Amino acid sequence: MKRNFKLILEYDGTLYHGWQRQPHDLTIQEVVEDALEKITRTKCIVYGAGRTDSGVHALNYVANFWCDTHLEAGIFVKALNSTLPNDIVCKECTLAPESFHARKSASSKIYEYHITNGPTPPAVCRHYAWYVRRKLDQDAMRQAAELLVGTHDFSAFEGAGSPKATSVRTITQSQLQVWENHLIYRVEGNGFLRYMVRNIVGTLVYIGMGKIPPLAMQTILESGDRSQAGPTAPPIGLFMMLVKY
Amino acid sequence: MKRNFKLILEYDGTLYHGWQRQPHDLTIQEVVEDALEKITRTKCIVYGAGRTDSGVHALNYVANFWCDTHLEAGIFVKALNSTLPNDIVCKECTLAPESFHARKSASSKIYEYHITNGPTPPAVCRHYAWYVRRKLDQDAMRQAAELLVGTHDFSAFEGAGSPKATSVRTITQSQLQVWENHLIYRVEGNGFLRYMVRNIVGTLVYIGMGKIPPLAMQTILESGDRSQAGPTAPPIGLFMMLVKY
Repeated sequence: MKRNFKLILEYDGTLYHGWQRQPHDLTIQEVVEDALEKITRTKCIVYGAGRTDSGVHALNYVANFWCDTHLEAGIFVKALNSTLPNDIVCKECTLAPESFHARKSASSKIYEYHITNGPTPPAVCRHYAWYVRRKLDQDAMRQAAELLVGTHDFSAFEGAGSPKATSVRTITQSQLQVWENHLIYRVEGNGFLRYMVRNIVGTLVYIGMGKIPPLAMQTILESGDRSQAGPTAPPIGLFMMLVKY
Repeated sequence: MKRNFKLILEYDGTLYHGWQRQPHDLTIQEVVEDALEKITRTKCIVYGAGRTDSGVHALNYVANFWCDTHLEAGIFVKALNSTLPNDIVCKECTLAPESFHARKSASSKIYEYHITNGPTPPAVCRHYAWYVRRKLDQDAMRQAAELLVGTHDFSAFEGAGSPKATSVRTITQSQLQVWENHLIYRVEGNGFLRYMVRNIVGTLVYIGMGKIPPLAMQTILESGDRSQAGPTAPPIGLFMMLVKY
């Protein structure tokens, strides 16, 4: 009888083309599904909490899979970690209710975006932050970030070719934390459009550079016009931190 | 006329066989000297603040070199960063007094050692911490760490084949900081013997595992007997943080 297993995964996305299985490129989903097939000797589809882009990292990515196996849930942690490459780690595996689906059951997600801002780039941890040389106005960025909290149409921050039916999302947390030359943008919402976090961060950085005034965040949001917002920040600094159910 | 330049370097030691030039293995010193030769078209010896072991990282490594060049000190930052690979970064270059020598002039050095302690290993930043699965007793480690402060003969923590004339060193700071499942051991001293920090950390981890009682740190220190201390911690978690002059 098939049972529903919930996984919590951490991964370093540097070498992967995102979560979702692709015909020609290596993805996290494929590697996890292949590992599960080795362990259970059956093919399972692993449902992820959402697509992550090529190069994006995750500290607590949630996924689930249905499997007819005699193995106990706890065994999968050890079995997966001895099968998976070092850049993908299974932190937890538990039995989930039948109704549980990693993406459809999610009530909110938290992302963090890390920026290193200083006269020289980092060498240590250089794969985990976007390096911006030009001195950023942190107060302007903080002010702009807070304007995103609420229920809005986020079309202005939606990447091209997005498959979502509506662009309305609710953001409950949108804040900038600063630690020396390290900036962390933390955002929580009930859903995110394609490239939405990276487009928000690109806009915040433009604001930090003085290319856009902070209050314009409101105008850009209301315009629904992607061309008014800043560029898409690179995937390197983005982390999926938590999925809430 | 030759002038004396002081460099502050950050490096990710993962791919290098330490600081000091070796006949057959790639080292930081060699890469920096080669970059300077490309820039200045003269061969310069770069004097480092000390050897770092294979795989050890540095956030503020200090070095100096004498060079007959018309280039201003500030120019070297940009020139080096466009010549060096991404895992070595020049953070600062300034003119130094004639008497300045990165190693001989140093009054103290600060190292940090990072440990990840939890049921599963990290995927993100896995090259920057030693992963220890077994739950560590942080209080015991903290207590033992503090016993090292003072002037002692550190023979018990000295690696074999160490070339130093005396094993007496003064430690002014030796403390364990904890942040969730991340432990950071920070130590400042007027000098360090070969493998000394890694041998101290290996001993602290043995203490954290309950294999050695915390107060035995004192006995081990007084014994001068390397075989009583714990194993050498791997280089992966070690960072040279600061050199004081």
